[in-house]
Amino acid sequence: MSIITLLTDFGARDGFVGVLKGVILSFNPHAHIIDIAHEIAPGDIDAGAFVLASAYSSFPPDTIHVIVIDPGVGTSRKPLCVRANSYYFVAPDNGILKWILFAHPDALVMELTKPQFFKTPVSNTFHGRDIFAPVAAHLSLGIPMSQLGKPYTAFDRGVIPVLRQGNESIAGEIIYIDRFGNLVSNIPGGYLQDKNITKIVLPRHTISCLSPSYQSAGSGPLALIGSHGFLEIALDGNNANEILHYGIGTVIKVYFSE
Amino acid sequence: MSIITLLTDFGARDGFVGVLKGVILSFNPHAHIIDIAHEIAPGDIDAGAFVLASAYSSFPPDTIHVIVIDPGVGTSRKPLCVRANSYYFVAPDNGILKWILFAHPDALVMELTKPQFFKTPVSNTFHGRDIFAPVAAHLSLGIPMSQLGKPYTAFDRGVIPVLRQGNESIAGEIIYIDRFGNLVSNIPGGYLQDKNITKIVLPRHTISCLSPSYQSAGSGPLALIGSHGFLEIALDGNNANEILHYGIGTVIKVYFSE
Amino acid sequence: MSIITLLTDFGARDGFVGVLKGVILSFNPHAHIIDIAHEIAPGDIDAGAFVLASAYSSFPPDTIHVIVIDPGVGTSRKPLCVRANSYYFVAPDNGILKWILFAHPDALVMELTKPQFFKTPVSNTFHGRDIFAPVAAHLSLGIPMSQLGKPYTAFDRGVIPVLRQGNESIAGEIIYIDRFGNLVSNIPGGYLQDKNITKIVLPRHTISCLSPSYQSAGSGPLALIGSHGFLEIALDGNNANEILHYGIGTVIKVYFSE
Repeated sequence: MSIITLLTDFGARDGFVGVLKGVILSFNPHAHIIDIAHEIAPGDIDAGAFVLASAYSSFPPDTIHVIVIDPGVGTSRKPLCVRANSYYFVAPDNGILKWILFAHPDALVMELTKPQFFKTPVSNTFHGRDIFAPVAAHLSLGIPMSQLGKPYTAFDRGVIPVLRQGNESIAGEIIYIDRFGNLVSNIPGGYLQDKNITKIVLPRHTISCLSPSYQSAGSGPLALIGSHGFLEIALDGNNANEILHYGIGTVIKVYFSE
Repeated sequence: MSIITLLTDFGARDGFVGVLKGVILSFNPHAHIIDIAHEIAPGDIDAGAFVLASAYSSFPPDTIHVIVIDPGVGTSRKPLCVRANSYYFVAPDNGILKWILFAHPDALVMELTKPQFFKTPVSNTFHGRDIFAPVAAHLSLGIPMSQLGKPYTAFDRGVIPVLRQGNESIAGEIIYIDRFGNLVSNIPGGYLQDKNITKIVLPRHTISCLSPSYQSAGSGPLALIGSHGFLEIALDGNNANEILHYGIGTVIKVYFSE
Repeated sequence: MSIITLLTDFGARDGFVGVLKGVILSFNPHAHIIDIAHEIAPGDIDAGAFVLASAYSSFPPDTIHVIVIDPGVGTSRKPLCVRANSYYFVAPDNGILKWILFAHPDALVMELTKPQFFKTPVSNTFHGRDIFAPVAAHLSLGIPMSQLGKPYTAFDRGVIPVLRQGNESIAGEIIYIDRFGNLVSNIPGGYLQDKNITKIVLPRHTISCLSPSYQSAGSGPLALIGSHGFLEIALDGNNANEILHYGIGTVIKVYFSE
């Protein structure tokens, strides 16, 4: 049984998600379709890229991930199929796969060029229905990826926020804010693991140490290694985003002694 | 494997959708349940009718579509099963099927009258649980539609917004607004296909031509044939609904020379 | 085919729900995963407990219900597996199961103590991923509940709102408000069934009798036995919650003559 996941910015009040599922089942009635998330803000490629990077590897190998956050539908951006880390990704070439392509430079990237695997005629407004869902269904039926198109190297690598490492510090930034208001940075927990942290500095707050859980702090913001594996800023029992007003891109600097 | 889809105004914060699924699986543990959409605004029959019309035919033939947008639950409105265009529809008789019944005048419409296919006792507050889900489950088990009740002809045909065709113009109206803020009209793309469009007129804007995609315009509103197959008004990179303030029912007139 | 349901406060814009599903499918690719609801307000254990109680018994016996509303993740609260009324419940020990444990005092409650059934290393931030989903998957594979841990009796029984019964009255309170704005009380419909109701009293309204459906009243609030089986306050065609401003905990008193 082939698993096909869906990650979109389609919400749950229009029928777009239903259409994707109907198209997949029309090509492969035995496909096992799983929703990852559909309430990505409209066109928010960075949020979608992070959610995908957080969730995709929880699935069994060979899962086919379909991502339709596609503000450039109908323009010259290419439709892609990517094989990386034993998973398939079917998505527009707009940076939505940036974390996967960054982490897996050996990824195989194909431009989807074979209309026999599309639902034709292909519109300029809904490639999820006309290209991505049909291609995923064909993959799930056993069509080899090599038959779907041609290798493509000029793909959009997106912008990966940089980490600035000093001798006794590392600076990153807030790259994602979840529904609980937790502020997720790009500073990897693994990097901090064997360090003796002396302070964690935000523009208007300083935190003295890492907390083991969301409930272990006093009244101010706390820092912990969150479930995504990154340093995260939170408020015990509150929505840090609503109260602290640190947006995406806010710099976080961690000081430590080895 | 029988596919049963669900389209409701139940949202995702109460357990109503879970109850529908549990009831279906209690009657048929092998039913393949697929969500179309659950965030239709409470009681918004017109929106639900449009979403259903947009999505239903993407599914394989014989898919059973269950629609529970039912503000009149417990009143005299009838519960129905409809066979149209090779699909089944199980829903209240309140206009939610208007586009399907309009497009398929040969539809077979049955009033559901057989309590042996219901979950009894039937409440006055949740026919989704007590009638529509159980009947869909029985259909998926192979019970013929003819056994579910009796033919019904006095069904609610709803209000279908009219198109006004002139020699060199057609006027329709906005009938749906999607989550991206795109304003979908009832003017069919097919009708405009071979026409030489000279202008598209809204109360406070005039658009000179059709755009091929959502990204192809200047700064003002653009018009295109959207994924539903209808003329649609959009703003490149913005939410047309929030910015233009044209509501449902706003007249759109297209002028053309043959 | 084992059914595993998911009830969380994760929403649909992060990837947390996707991660739960991926983890379950990684352990048991044949698990049949069903969403109950994911838009429980963050950390709202009372709402989650009510939704669970409303929906769980609609599913076939032996369904495994996974509930992840877990503001205390990473603290000393225990992870549990409960067997009650022929269903399994895998959840944190924080009161989320209060209605089930109240209704089924013979429930078998186990503390989950066996890391071989977890996804290790177990984080302090996401026990849904690391404990609850893996344990549910193992249950669905046929691992007996007795092997998952050890009996636990000191579990959190939560707060069950009391009913105050007089000779010719019963007083309860609003315990849940659904998306339609209906105000659900803890007064069981069964208790009122054979009573001659004389009035239903709210702080600023008096209702004279029970209505058979949501559409059967005049302009003011109406009372009916809702789909959950409890006395419910509603407004015909309107959102009672938004208009009446009665919150959770508001007292409702029903007067009757036998």
